[in-house]
Amino acid sequence: MDTVTITTVPVPGEAAAHAAHAVQAVLEALPDVRGWQEDFYRDVHAHPELSHREYKTAKKVAGRLDSFGYHVHEGIGGTGVVGILRNGDGPVVLLRAEMDALPVLEATGLPYSSTVTDTDSHGNEVPVAHVCGHDMHTTCLLGAAQLLADSREHWNGTLVALFQPAEEVGDGARRMIDDNLAAIIPRPDVALAQHNYQLPAGLVGTRPGPALAIADNMRITVHGRGGPGSMPHTTIDPVALAAMIVVRLHTVVSREVPPSETAVLTVGSIRAGNKSNVIPDRAVLELNIRSYSDHTRKTLLDAIYRIVAAECQASACPRDPEFILFDQFPLTDNDEATTSRVADAFTSFFGDRAQSINQVPASEDFSDIPNAFGTPYTYWGIGCIDPDTYRKAADAGRIAQDIPAPHAPNFAPVIQPTCDTGTQALVVAALAWLGGRDQQNRGVD
Amino acid sequence: MDTVTITTVPVPGEAAAHAAHAVQAVLEALPDVRGWQEDFYRDVHAHPELSHREYKTAKKVAGRLDSFGYHVHEGIGGTGVVGILRNGDGPVVLLRAEMDALPVLEATGLPYSSTVTDTDSHGNEVPVAHVCGHDMHTTCLLGAAQLLADSREHWNGTLVALFQPAEEVGDGARRMIDDNLAAIIPRPDVALAQHNYQLPAGLVGTRPGPALAIADNMRITVHGRGGPGSMPHTTIDPVALAAMIVVRLHTVVSREVPPSETAVLTVGSIRAGNKSNVIPDRAVLELNIRSYSDHTRKTLLDAIYRIVAAECQASACPRDPEFILFDQFPLTDNDEATTSRVADAFTSFFGDRAQSINQVPASEDFSDIPNAFGTPYTYWGIGCIDPDTYRKAADAGRIAQDIPAPHAPNFAPVIQPTCDTGTQALVVAALAWLGGRDQQNRGVD
Amino acid sequence: MDTVTITTVPVPGEAAAHAAHAVQAVLEALPDVRGWQEDFYRDVHAHPELSHREYKTAKKVAGRLDSFGYHVHEGIGGTGVVGILRNGDGPVVLLRAEMDALPVLEATGLPYSSTVTDTDSHGNEVPVAHVCGHDMHTTCLLGAAQLLADSREHWNGTLVALFQPAEEVGDGARRMIDDNLAAIIPRPDVALAQHNYQLPAGLVGTRPGPALAIADNMRITVHGRGGPGSMPHTTIDPVALAAMIVVRLHTVVSREVPPSETAVLTVGSIRAGNKSNVIPDRAVLELNIRSYSDHTRKTLLDAIYRIVAAECQASACPRDPEFILFDQFPLTDNDEATTSRVADAFTSFFGDRAQSINQVPASEDFSDIPNAFGTPYTYWGIGCIDPDTYRKAADAGRIAQDIPAPHAPNFAPVIQPTCDTGTQALVVAALAWLGGRDQQNRGVD
Amino acid sequence: MDTVTITTVPVPGEAAAHAAHAVQAVLEALPDVRGWQEDFYRDVHAHPELSHREYKTAKKVAGRLDSFGYHVHEGIGGTGVVGILRNGDGPVVLLRAEMDALPVLEATGLPYSSTVTDTDSHGNEVPVAHVCGHDMHTTCLLGAAQLLADSREHWNGTLVALFQPAEEVGDGARRMIDDNLAAIIPRPDVALAQHNYQLPAGLVGTRPGPALAIADNMRITVHGRGGPGSMPHTTIDPVALAAMIVVRLHTVVSREVPPSETAVLTVGSIRAGNKSNVIPDRAVLELNIRSYSDHTRKTLLDAIYRIVAAECQASACPRDPEFILFDQFPLTDNDEATTSRVADAFTSFFGDRAQSINQVPASEDFSDIPNAFGTPYTYWGIGCIDPDTYRKAADAGRIAQDIPAPHAPNFAPVIQPTCDTGTQALVVAALAWLGGRDQQNRGVD
Repeated sequence: MDTVTITTVPVPGEAAAHAAHAVQAVLEALPDVRGWQEDFYRDVHAHPELSHREYKTAKKVAGRLDSFGYHVHEGIGGTGVVGILRNGDGPVVLLRAEMDALPVLEATGLPYSSTVTDTDSHGNEVPVAHVCGHDMHTTCLLGAAQLLADSREHWNGTLVALFQPAEEVGDGARRMIDDNLAAIIPRPDVALAQHNYQLPAGLVGTRPGPALAIADNMRITVHGRGGPGSMPHTTIDPVALAAMIVVRLHTVVSREVPPSETAVLTVGSIRAGNKSNVIPDRAVLELNIRSYSDHTRKTLLDAIYRIVAAECQASACPRDPEFILFDQFPLTDNDEATTSRVADAFTSFFGDRAQSINQVPASEDFSDIPNAFGTPYTYWGIGCIDPDTYRKAADAGRIAQDIPAPHAPNFAPVIQPTCDTGTQALVVAALAWLGGRDQQNRGVD
Repeated sequence: MDTVTITTVPVPGEAAAHAAHAVQAVLEALPDVRGWQEDFYRDVHAHPELSHREYKTAKKVAGRLDSFGYHVHEGIGGTGVVGILRNGDGPVVLLRAEMDALPVLEATGLPYSSTVTDTDSHGNEVPVAHVCGHDMHTTCLLGAAQLLADSREHWNGTLVALFQPAEEVGDGARRMIDDNLAAIIPRPDVALAQHNYQLPAGLVGTRPGPALAIADNMRITVHGRGGPGSMPHTTIDPVALAAMIVVRLHTVVSREVPPSETAVLTVGSIRAGNKSNVIPDRAVLELNIRSYSDHTRKTLLDAIYRIVAAECQASACPRDPEFILFDQFPLTDNDEATTSRVADAFTSFFGDRAQSINQVPASEDFSDIPNAFGTPYTYWGIGCIDPDTYRKAADAGRIAQDIPAPHAPNFAPVIQPTCDTGTQALVVAALAWLGGRDQQNRGVD
Repeated sequence: MDTVTITTVPVPGEAAAHAAHAVQAVLEALPDVRGWQEDFYRDVHAHPELSHREYKTAKKVAGRLDSFGYHVHEGIGGTGVVGILRNGDGPVVLLRAEMDALPVLEATGLPYSSTVTDTDSHGNEVPVAHVCGHDMHTTCLLGAAQLLADSREHWNGTLVALFQPAEEVGDGARRMIDDNLAAIIPRPDVALAQHNYQLPAGLVGTRPGPALAIADNMRITVHGRGGPGSMPHTTIDPVALAAMIVVRLHTVVSREVPPSETAVLTVGSIRAGNKSNVIPDRAVLELNIRSYSDHTRKTLLDAIYRIVAAECQASACPRDPEFILFDQFPLTDNDEATTSRVADAFTSFFGDRAQSINQVPASEDFSDIPNAFGTPYTYWGIGCIDPDTYRKAADAGRIAQDIPAPHAPNFAPVIQPTCDTGTQALVVAALAWLGGRDQQNRGVD
Repeated sequence: MDTVTITTVPVPGEAAAHAAHAVQAVLEALPDVRGWQEDFYRDVHAHPELSHREYKTAKKVAGRLDSFGYHVHEGIGGTGVVGILRNGDGPVVLLRAEMDALPVLEATGLPYSSTVTDTDSHGNEVPVAHVCGHDMHTTCLLGAAQLLADSREHWNGTLVALFQPAEEVGDGARRMIDDNLAAIIPRPDVALAQHNYQLPAGLVGTRPGPALAIADNMRITVHGRGGPGSMPHTTIDPVALAAMIVVRLHTVVSREVPPSETAVLTVGSIRAGNKSNVIPDRAVLELNIRSYSDHTRKTLLDAIYRIVAAECQASACPRDPEFILFDQFPLTDNDEATTSRVADAFTSFFGDRAQSINQVPASEDFSDIPNAFGTPYTYWGIGCIDPDTYRKAADAGRIAQDIPAPHAPNFAPVIQPTCDTGTQALVVAALAWLGGRDQQNRGVD
């Protein structure tokens, strides 16, 4: 057995060649799926749903997967969907996409713009739009799922297509895990995901190691004592206190984090008082905290707790401050070997269009899934900006100004070549595991 | 003539005696007005109206004045009312009360509590309540107006009973002036007003010189550049800027105002951003600024303009800050001679219940009226707290904690002896001018 | 006896007339003392001595007092001197002057400028100069001492001429008290002192009530952890900490002290680090704290302790901060009756040149002496600026800019009429007690 | 031509083998130089000289070089020394060491500790010590210079041994350049330098790309207006201003520099005022500013200028602030190919003792020399800590606490194996250029 195994296991170059062969075969049918993909994308784009409310989107996804022959599970962690396709022995590859949209008023001017509104968790009616491109991620994964389902003879193993809810609020992946995902899907050997990047459409980019930040969001309420604006000595002024806290917090990154570490501490919101002449009794700060290691995260959080508590003491506050952590995202730390394997497959397929990407300070909850299984993973970027537009902006040194970033009201990927590229990237990356054993396994038969 | 005049002008002591005699005579009828006063007070208290919307209150006031025999003018400066009673030669005395209530939810638990709501200038439905006691001021002035009208034989001169709108927002008095009040009433020789103070009901208190502060309210909008919380370097963070401004503003009183001057600079409200992970594009601060002289006021305002502008430069703001002054109140600077005359009359009538009061950092727009005429004025306080309650709080050193201040949701004067005392005080003070020439003028006849 | 006394005690008006008579008589000899006074002043001015080192000055003073016939005690509290002159029954009047100079380089350009240097308590050689006018105070008191000694027939009682050391550091008076002054002098019935004011020479000014502030000086050492400037995360940066403390301390006056109270909190010195690229391990702040009541003083001190401790916690300091109070000065709270008596005597003698003066934020340790005896006191000002110079500065609105304040390198009184006026003021004030019984006692003889 | 070139140029592996052979041959004599090296080191260590005053050290260096057969130039840029050894055709390799010491009181307790003092540029007498290890760098380079001079048959080319002054103040290298170094030495093909690192002695470490930071030091003087501490309103308080500036400056790194960029802005020193009760007229801040790119450096400097100027406006300063840049160091950006060549040579010679090192926030002026010639360069580290001591500290997680850093009073390399390793490293690195053509060139002859 050992001998047989040894002789039939291809050397990496050989496996890559097999995979490349499988890629060609699988992607031959891309023109056949492209049509419904574009329609599907426009439909989902025009009908976005807020986090944890992706009911219709999940239904559409589940229907497609079912029609492709996947074994479909719905309602995982609320609205999560997985499709499982077992295709003989071989690795288990998990591909993941997100389904939720954001409470933003779309301003793209596209004919398929969203006009949807919904009621948010505070009871306010809010607009809803896919300004993060999750609709594109879902569309690409569905397309790749069909392509791979329709060409099972070219690969071996198990494909898990996972569509998660509520990435935007950081807990969609965890809720699927907590809803016993491990009992539903086999343990993946690798987990793969992708996201739109502000790069020309047609490009793909990989990066080993920490690629996206840990993010924590924190609401801090400090308690003073209200009173008339004319009698500050009878009050404990929470506006002055909050200002001191904000000022102090800016020393955390500048003094407490090693200069070579990437860390961000932003106070995105400060709220206190309603009237000029009344000193309020509290102030509320909302913080966004990012880092690329648990150690740095701890440094930041410890400093925030310490500083806020001490500033409240400096003001002689009658009550302790309150800290609420929310919208927490894990580190996206791309496994070196996994990333290298995907990068090689991309280079083989995309040529010069396969690049490396920079670390970005954005965050994702994708890694919660592989982390729960102890599975290595990688997460890559696909360009989504019209190449001409991008080139003009780049030539003018105006990328930041002219290219809408995700979450901006006017953000939307160009449908093509974004959709094709994202579909190809998923197939190519999946086959780097599933396709490499193609000949080998067949030989074993 | 000269000789006659000289011989008939009473020395002050003699005039005071005449006035004291008139006071006794006029106030004999107080038990007759007390009944309707208490009903009227409860009615107005239960039906409060916001600033510049005192339509029903003004109508009630005008109806009463008319029934007392006053020549009544309505709608001055919107909803202002004056009643003029000419009673022979003699001084013109203006007595003033306010009619407007506040957007506060009453929490007194009184049977005649307000349940009124109205729509504020931002379009929000707000509760309305008389938590500043203007209903009491109006009631006392109406009572005094009837008492003086019903006993004209005891005094000489002209009485102007003025009921102004919109004291709470600082422009009710000015609007009456701007609506040509000078063409409606004769130029007053003296102007008198009173306010509830946190003192035991039954007391009256005077103070010469600056008694209430100049107040300005200011809304400052500073403009940064918004962006993702994770990319502060692409933004100009208005939260950090606003915090620096608040911190800097606290050096104005501590460094720029002479230590012996009274000045207050409060930032009552700070607002920036809605989300923890989005750096907003602006911040709004609302300030309350108080002083007791134009020079100190200028020091404060100049420092605010200078500091905010410079801090915006320190942040490299893309736009200049915006400053809007609103709810501005003049200095209440009680004329020495006028105050002395009222204080003497009070001592004569109230005995030990006539006291002096401290400067308070509150503000009033009353002085806009006498200032427009170049008329000397004084403004005094009347106690409005149940004496037993007050004594217990004082004994426990808990005045600040246990005695509701004006504008607090649970503030309300005790009806008696507040109403009697306020009515008496107006009569006594008015007769210090109108009653002192009683015998003299009669002798001239 | 009692009866006699009662019948012969003059009514105040009569006593004042007696005193005025005595003043004329005593001051007749002023031209005789003026000569040596001016020489003495120039000599002491040119030979200033630091606090607690007034050896030569004390010797000169003691010699003069002895020559006038005073019973002289030297070396009280180090270098303090008292001369006692008992002149029959009557009140005990204490007149006080100071002898110490300051570590300042004189820049008056006067022919009798100081060129003296001395070694300060840190071992540094420093210049020494009489830039606070203590030389003038001493000269005036010596002159008054001689005038009163030479005309004992015009007054009755006991005169105590006290020359204290170390007023500038706030403990000269206390050291005399602690050195058992009470065993050396009789308990005074009244204590009197004067100081140069930035007013035209020739004027005298009084003020009842709090006239000079309580002052405390505080040295605060905060402990961080030093390290290379390039590795702030290995340090606890005391520069950043000290800056936060300074900023926070400016909220004490603006937020914690009632706006109508006078209070000053100045950080006069901040010191940390020697090199740009080394984060030091500590920072030292020196504060000056002034108030006019024990309650406000406590508010200030409590806030400082609380804020500094909390800011050190916010920085996670490895050691607690250290607070050292030094150069503490008591309140100078002029007794109402005493001040009134002096003011009346001044008006009687100086006419329009007797004025009232404003509260000033300076401080003095004079009151430690009367407070130790439970003796009422007053402290007045004498003008010391050339009247023409003063008038020009006043006309130009440039008093603050053009008139040197005490402690400025170019401060010096004009010798005349400052010296005459200060001498006269002491005699006039002393005789308001000692001279009033002149005729009475003589009549008893 | 092409053909000839191709046939005679060794493939890298072949060149490396030649170089490795040369290394063995040259270093055979290391035991012969080790003896005088250790003596020389102890001598220079015990007789340190401040920057730009390396007179005796330079004389000792020049004497040795001359004795080895180098063509020696002295006094370049003040006290700089170069020795040139031409040894046939081949590359020109520049090896550089520094000679200056620091104004620090040595606290190593070593028998050869410095007891030297000197007068610094402010006229103060200061201790002097080699607490940065320049004495070791000089000793190693002299040893390598002799070894290479004594074995010329094993290499070809030109060796330039450069000993620069005043590295500690950042301008020693530039002064040599400005003193026309280019006319004295041939243009180097490569420039090499090394520094003690806090690693176990015996190790060498390389790093391609930015290895040491750009450093700028800045002295900022801000001008307020002095006055009595009791009268802040007559002053412009530079202590409050300086505190605001420090606080504001901490937002530069946290808000204006991209989070992924390494940047440091430290205020190492703040100085204002001498007395608690006097508000001074100015404050002086000293800053240390580090970055790894010109763009980030510009961001930092622009922000500092902008913030300080604006804060001075916020304080209404009477004069503009003053900025003085000093002790400026360029980026040390190790050439990729050069570093790779040295790293390969180190691995070949040192085996596991050749490692990679981290970017450190320290700075150097070495790169000014190659930059002036357009020469690629690399700069590596040599361990200098006793390996046992290091291991114990590492095991206890106490490297930062227990291992003295350069510039600390108790910093000193262990003489061995530091000296041997540093000498070997220089020889090995030089021969990676000079030794590789050994056989080839000889064959050409």
